[in-house]
Amino acid sequence: MDKLINGKEVSKKIREELKKEIESFPRKPSLVVIQVGNDSASEIYVKNKEKAALEIGIDFKHIKYEENVKEEEIINKIKELNDNDDIDGILVQLPLPKHLNETKIINTIDPNKDVDGLTITNMGKLMNKMDGLVSCTPLGVIELLKAYNVEIKGKHVIIVGRSNLVGKPLIHLFLNNDATVTVCHSKTENLSEYTKQADILVVAVGKKNLITRDMVKKDAVVIDVGINREDGKIYGDVYYLDVFDKVSLITPVPGGVGPMTVTMLFKNVIKSYKNKITSK
Amino acid sequence: MDKLINGKEVSKKIREELKKEIESFPRKPSLVVIQVGNDSASEIYVKNKEKAALEIGIDFKHIKYEENVKEEEIINKIKELNDNDDIDGILVQLPLPKHLNETKIINTIDPNKDVDGLTITNMGKLMNKMDGLVSCTPLGVIELLKAYNVEIKGKHVIIVGRSNLVGKPLIHLFLNNDATVTVCHSKTENLSEYTKQADILVVAVGKKNLITRDMVKKDAVVIDVGINREDGKIYGDVYYLDVFDKVSLITPVPGGVGPMTVTMLFKNVIKSYKNKITSK
Repeated sequence: MDKLINGKEVSKKIREELKKEIESFPRKPSLVVIQVGNDSASEIYVKNKEKAALEIGIDFKHIKYEENVKEEEIINKIKELNDNDDIDGILVQLPLPKHLNETKIINTIDPNKDVDGLTITNMGKLMNKMDGLVSCTPLGVIELLKAYNVEIKGKHVIIVGRSNLVGKPLIHLFLNNDATVTVCHSKTENLSEYTKQADILVVAVGKKNLITRDMVKKDAVVIDVGINREDGKIYGDVYYLDVFDKVSLITPVPGGVGPMTVTMLFKNVIKSYKNKITSK
Repeated sequence: MDKLINGKEVSKKIREELKKEIESFPRKPSLVVIQVGNDSASEIYVKNKEKAALEIGIDFKHIKYEENVKEEEIINKIKELNDNDDIDGILVQLPLPKHLNETKIINTIDPNKDVDGLTITNMGKLMNKMDGLVSCTPLGVIELLKAYNVEIKGKHVIIVGRSNLVGKPLIHLFLNNDATVTVCHSKTENLSEYTKQADILVVAVGKKNLITRDMVKKDAVVIDVGINREDGKIYGDVYYLDVFDKVSLITPVPGGVGPMTVTMLFKNVIKSYKNKITSK
């Protein structure tokens, strides 16, 4: 089992450190999560965030709108939260219903409170290697690799998936860590020709068991970001049992990257809280 | 010679189109170039821009500061230009002297007038696949490939170099065109193992003749962004004569990407001009 990258365990350790750090603060850092409608996965994600936030001492506010809410109402609420000095982090739970302009809503968030790292400003800062708030799942991937002392510099990293949430921020995080980076996606021909070259393979596509044994290099490090629900069970993008004895390290699903995402969210909330204190 | 990607010729054709377009405008689009100090390469670049701008009918203003200018003076000038409705494009000629904060100065430019595409906002927009102003040399690379009907979708593009000016914007331009993209740089081990795989190889490093015959795949398309001056001559990053008969298409240096950069700058100035008209 020493091939396992245990995200739950790494996550727990970091959360304990964050909890201690928070105890030394004059007030609790605060996070507002805005949710629209009743998407069942979103319900679970928001509940998990709330539970974990309270556990480590982050003040958690949940604002929930009906499916048919007007865009303007959300925009105005975000502006109010931007101006409220007691709020450190604002997160809009995605996906939003189709009638809402996701880009506009996200980019209303003050970049200093954008703990999901999804505003244009924070993406541009990441691309420029400037200090900003970075998307949580990509941050979690890097943190996991560091927790297991995986050397990134000079390694060939293959990222499968080019989403704004995961793939694209990862390109720059890995480049900033001096990896050679390849990005594959739905239009890539002969995917396995690429994945077989990876020293570190990160898969964030959303296709159950896409990556099989013949597609990985011996002793590769495999990070599976996929969360695919089927008949009440959760599967990753990597066929875990198939590749397990060929690779050197691998994240399980669940229990790999998942727990890290929420932990990185809290890290961002605390960062935002501390930046505000420093800039006063 | 039908292997040659003739940037001069493509550029000339586009400039003729832009010139015609400008003739139909009620007023000339305008570009301000801010230069600091007497860097000899910068002198040449600014002169070239001025000459070409006047030729196609763009109003060109050159503001030149002494080497020891105070940062505040440049910042205030940029703010004044931002507020001036008659100015469509603002470009700060890089590099700046060491005592000036390049990031701060660049990011003072109104993103709508940032015709070099270097503000955080425009980089974030590019990463998000949103419409914005994109860095000129990367735009020129894509435009050259399109002019020669090079298929990008599904191809393996290797970019050597990860600068904010060229390499990083190219990642997203190629991804947005559905290529599979690999980024190599100074920390990449066994560079030739990567370059040999490229269907399209783009080199933007600044090392004379870095890429030799053994490093390219047969029939690859090679785009050389390098400009290396030695004894009054200009060399690319690709050893042109060495690779010429192995590849299917290649840009010469000079006369390849170079002329496209200035042409794309004008395209950006016109875009900024038109956006302003539309938003009124």
